Amino acid sequence: MTQEPEVWILRLGHRVFRDKRITTHLALVGRAFGASGIYIEGDADPKIKEKVDEINKTWGGEFTVNFVSNWINFVKKWKKEEGTVVHLTMYGLPFEDVINLIKDEKKKVLVIVGGKKVPRVAYEVADYNLAVTNQPHSEVAAIALFLDRYFEGKEPLHKNPKIKIVPTPRGKFVISRTL
Amino acid sequence: MTQEPEVWILRLGHRVFRDKRITTHLALVGRAFGASGIYIEGDADPKIKEKVDEINKTWGGEFTVNFVSNWINFVKKWKKEEGTVVHLTMYGLPFEDVINLIKDEKKKVLVIVGGKKVPRVAYEVADYNLAVTNQPHSEVAAIALFLDRYFEGKEPLHKNPKIKIVPTPRGKFVISRTL
Repeated sequence: MTQEPEVWILRLGHRVFRDKRITTHLALVGRAFGASGIYIEGDADPKIKEKVDEINKTWGGEFTVNFVSNWINFVKKWKKEEGTVVHLTMYGLPFEDVINLIKDEKKKVLVIVGGKKVPRVAYEVADYNLAVTNQPHSEVAAIALFLDRYFEGKEPLHKNPKIKIVPTPRGKFVISRTL
Repeated sequence: MTQEPEVWILRLGHRVFRDKRITTHLALVGRAFGASGIYIEGDADPKIKEKVDEINKTWGGEFTVNFVSNWINFVKKWKKEEGTVVHLTMYGLPFEDVINLIKDEKKKVLVIVGGKKVPRVAYEVADYNLAVTNQPHSEVAAIALFLDRYFEGKEPLHKNPKIKIVPTPRGKFVISRTL
């Protein structure tokens, strides 16, 4: 089985009060759909890291939460040293038309998702400005669809979980590891 | 072209303060990915309806926001008079294994998404309890993936928009209708 290069998320303009839950959802969606971690720009909000660490401990895996201050420098460094930069925006090209080009590059991918108002430089610095529909909706849904297509629906392995769900048609069925 | 039966969303346990943005994202994702409308149970929150009506006016379409108080009666009535009931939960069966069965029924679908704590009766009253991954993440991502698969990625027609995006590789390109 070939493994896809890593995908990381860069969340711009996080504000503790307004975005707490949306950014947490972004991180958890990233984790569930195979991203390696998230970089958060804006307010450094330890609660999000605590929440995600707690989820890792219970459900497995090592999804990481980091904070960046100078995101433009961070993105430029990424382009030089790591790989491709994708910016998800409703104004971009249909992501499904382009995603195979990105996969063919076989490089690590940084996916930028905006907050309230994304500065123009994000459009300029990105290698690809891509849209998940050209309608207003949610960065949480956009990242989910992007990762779903990028990893072709393959669920990531979340190593060393304490508990695991056994899918069931009705109710809840959970197994826990007893050491 | 055959048209899929309508999909509607039922959002349980909405609390104005905590869920304002998540429920708004749910509605906008529903609209962008082809659902017909959302029913909200919990706090009747006129702001969400105002926000969605404004989006409809600008971006087209008639996605509707409604409030329900007795959701169990509402769901039972739906099963009797309208069609199928799906409950999205991390404990359910993999949605991709089941979605074609649901499509084959050719009935309207009500998709229940929970708030913080979903009462057991939701699992019992649903025709299908389905999971979009068995990991904790976001109801916003779950509804996006469900609708994406249900409508097979076909974008809905949003009638009578005032403005429309022309996809572009860099920057923003918008056309507006001048009457």
